[in-house]
Formats: sequence, C-alpha cells, structure tokens
Amino acid sequence: MTSSLKMTREEMITFLQQEFPQYVGEVCEVEDQYSLLRLPINDSHLRPGGTVSGPTLMALADVALYVAILSKIGPVALAVTTDFTIHFLNKPRADRAIMAKASLLKLGKRLVIGEVNLYSEGEAESVAHVVATYSIPPR
Amino acid sequence: MTSSLKMTREEMITFLQQEFPQYVGEVCEVEDQYSLLRLPINDSHLRPGGTVSGPTLMALADVALYVAILSKIGPVALAVTTDFTIHFLNKPRADRAIMAKASLLKLGKRLVIGEVNLYSEGEAESVAHVVATYSIPPR
Amino acid sequence: MTSSLKMTREEMITFLQQEFPQYVGEVCEVEDQYSLLRLPINDSHLRPGGTVSGPTLMALADVALYVAILSKIGPVALAVTTDFTIHFLNKPRADRAIMAKASLLKLGKRLVIGEVNLYSEGEAESVAHVVATYSIPPR
Amino acid sequence: MTSSLKMTREEMITFLQQEFPQYVGEVCEVEDQYSLLRLPINDSHLRPGGTVSGPTLMALADVALYVAILSKIGPVALAVTTDFTIHFLNKPRADRAIMAKASLLKLGKRLVIGEVNLYSEGEAESVAHVVATYSIPPR
Repeated sequence: MTSSLKMTREEMITFLQQEFPQYVGEVCEVEDQYSLLRLPINDSHLRPGGTVSGPTLMALADVALYVAILSKIGPVALAVTTDFTIHFLNKPRADRAIMAKASLLKLGKRLVIGEVNLYSEGEAESVAHVVATYSIPPR
Repeated sequence: MTSSLKMTREEMITFLQQEFPQYVGEVCEVEDQYSLLRLPINDSHLRPGGTVSGPTLMALADVALYVAILSKIGPVALAVTTDFTIHFLNKPRADRAIMAKASLLKLGKRLVIGEVNLYSEGEAESVAHVVATYSIPPR
Repeated sequence: MTSSLKMTREEMITFLQQEFPQYVGEVCEVEDQYSLLRLPINDSHLRPGGTVSGPTLMALADVALYVAILSKIGPVALAVTTDFTIHFLNKPRADRAIMAKASLLKLGKRLVIGEVNLYSEGEAESVAHVVATYSIPPR
Repeated sequence: MTSSLKMTREEMITFLQQEFPQYVGEVCEVEDQYSLLRLPINDSHLRPGGTVSGPTLMALADVALYVAILSKIGPVALAVTTDFTIHFLNKPRADRAIMAKASLLKLGKRLVIGEVNLYSEGEAESVAHVVATYSIPPR
C-alpha cells in the first residue's frame, strides 16, 4: 500500500521548529491514518484542583491537527483554523503527559476537517474530544 | 434597577490572583449584562503571519466566560467547561490588545451557557466568536 | 444609508418556493442586519413532554441563516452548510410559534458564518442559539 | 464479558414507537459499543442538487444518540439535548439509505457525550460527523 504522506516525522519537527517556534508538544508519530503528539505537563499547565487547563488541551489539539494536515498536503500551505469545538470528558491527570491523536475526517481542496482524541499517557479513557475545520488557501 | 452581580470587579481581580495565578487578561468591566477582558499582545502570542494565535484567543475567552459566570454565582462554586466552540472570523491585529466581551445566554442551576465576542481593541469587526457550556457543581 | 441587500422579502419568498419546496417557516423580515423567520407549531413538531423537537429548531435555524446569506449575495449562489452548532437553552412553548432571528458574523468570499437566536413568539428568553458556517462556491 | 446494555433492540423499538411516534429511522443494531440506525431516503428528505438535507441528517443523528444513551441507562430517564455540533463532510447519495452509527464518549451521571458517524449505505466515506451532549435528569 502506498503512503499518502508528504512529510516524515523528522521533516515535520524541523518545519515546526523553524516556522512555529511557539508550538507545543512533541511529535511522536506521523502516520497515514493519524498523527500523535505528546505534551509533558508541568505546573504552568495546571489549574486549581490539580487538573490540566482547558486552553492547554486546546493548544495541543490545534497543533496535532495542524501536523495531521501538513503531513498530507506538505509544508507549503498555510492552513487556518476556521472552527474548533472541544468537549471535555474526564479530568486529566496532573502527573502524566497529555497525548493527542489527530485524524482527518475529510481532506478537501478548500476545507479540511479533523478530530482529536486527547488522553493522559497510559490511560484508556479520553479527557477531551475535538473536531475542527481548517481552511486551505488556493494552491 | 437591582444589580444581579455577586462580585465587583475588584473582588474578581483579587479572587483570580489568589485562585488562578495563571489566568490571562485584565478584567476591565464586570457588569450585569457582560464582562469585558483585555489582553495586551506580545510576541509570545503571535503565530507566523503576524497574527494572534488561536489558543491565545481561546484562553482569553475561557477566562472571560469564567468571570461572567462567577460575577453571577459568586466566588464559591467551581465551574468546569464542558464544551467550547470557537469560530475564527477575521485576522486579529498583531499591534493591538485583544478584547473579550462575554455574556450569558442561560444561567441554569446545573449548566451555564455563554458567548464571547473577541475583537482587536478599537476595531469594529470581530476576530472570533465563542459559545461554551460550563457545569456548575451542586450547591 | 445604502442597503446591502440583494433580495427583497418578496423575492426571497418566491425563490424559496421555487427552489426549496420543502423549506420550513415564513419569511417575516429581510433586513440589512438580520432576517427573521416564523414557524407555527403543530403536533408534528412536538416531542414527549410537550416541547418543540430539536430537529424542528435546527431545520428552522438552517433556513433562517440561508435566507440571511442569500439576502446579501443574491439568489444565484448555492451555499452549503459546513458546520452547525446548536445550544439548547430553555424549553420552547408548545402553544406558540418559534421565531428565528439570523444575523451574519462574517461575510467572506468563500465562507460565511452566522448566528441565530431562536425564541417562542412573544417571549423574551431564547430557547436556542445557533452558530454555523456556510461554504460559498466560487462565483 | 458482561454486557452493559439495559435494553435490547426489540425493547428499544417498542419504547420508541410508544413514546416517540415521530422518531425517524429504523433501529438496526443496539450493541455495547454503538447503536446503528438506518433511514431510507425519499423525495421529502432531498434538497436542490439531489442531496439529503442537513436537517434530515441532524434528526437521524439525534435519534441515534438517544438510542445509544437509552441502551445504557434504560427507558426511564428523559435525556435532553444540550448541545449538538455537526460537520458536513461529503455529499450524501440521494439513492441510498443514510446510516447513523452512534457511540458514547462519556457516560456521566449528569451529562452524556456521544458522537455519530453518518454515511450512505454501502459507502466507505462519511457524509457527516456529530458530537453532542445530553443532560440526564437526577435519578
């Protein structure tokens, strides 16, 4: 089976470091069906009650979808988020990294729609679910 | 007309500083109909292309809604975001603060739903619109 | 002040009758800032507990946004819904018509984003809030 | 492995016929991990361009999630939709039934969150994706 990937994990990491110095999370896997990112949690990510803050999860999910999209269309295009919906499901653990597994629901010419499953590393249940749309400029 | 506010702006600022040391934005107004927050933009908030990053807008909107809710139910309850939907409308200016005006659509006993209008300070058009739900623990 | 409307209420009704024979609701107002639709409620719209069903509200909101968009871009374009988020706020009355007031948050060349406030006729509080995106084919 | 189901497919059909005479779709499967519904398409479901209307998809997805929830909590409780987000992915076929496969992301005491994958019968690609929250009254 032929891969539809236009960027390897190593190319993705190099691209993000050059173009998005403020991006969050480590790129663990870039696969045909999904991209997997990992964010080690420290005090700056926590909110009262010892849980990971919502904006931390949103930022990681946004990067994870961005990675999943770039892996399919290459590093040239500038994808822009147009809508982003997150449902918070379970309290994330404060002592574990957060994992974000992103996959695409539709890869159109103008719009790409994807979803992200977020979970605490090593745990089975999800902490949040994201679905979002990205607009792709004309190529 | 009687105010339905349970916290003044000053009480809100003191509460956030004690309980949410990582909160973002300045609390400008706490009114019956809305709460207004302001976030000065610096390089750490920008993404390539010189625009304010999506997660920065999401974090500010989340705090703005949190402030709007606490102003109505008081500082005791611990509201938890259950869903959060943002639509990005126009490119924010990199050289202006971002303003977030939050108002409540429904103030229920268990669920509170609100919306936020985000815009660059001094500009008429919105940069993003948020609608989100918060779960209120039994009192 | 010049109107930005490209269709009158009468033209809109004629267009809907020809092109969308299954559309729901009466077009009450087509204004620069909003479009207002009205749906009389009968037993076919009700669900157990004597309240208007969610899909009835969604269908009316979808038409209301469609009308608001067409009023700005004219009857030619075929707008397609790409995302649609509804929050249910209060129980609609079973004995009153449902009103849907739609306004646009952004009128772009490719994407249009709008919101709808739904309420029971004559009542002050909202029964539901919608935000949705429509994709406009290249003209 | 023990099933967590509180209603069989036959009990579900009987319940829906008694309590929701206006429900749409046939209940094909009620399983631990998902519920599957099927809606035969006729002219009343189509919109211009020969595609299934958005509200038709929304109504089917709402019932499919309702079935998935009742199968886990039993026929007593009255679940109420609080938010509902749909992304339209691909044009549905006008000559095939629409299938809705619903699964739960979180089954809480007060809130249940689920997602639905909608597709034309016999086709691999999705036509729409739904994520929604239901509020469960205190038991």
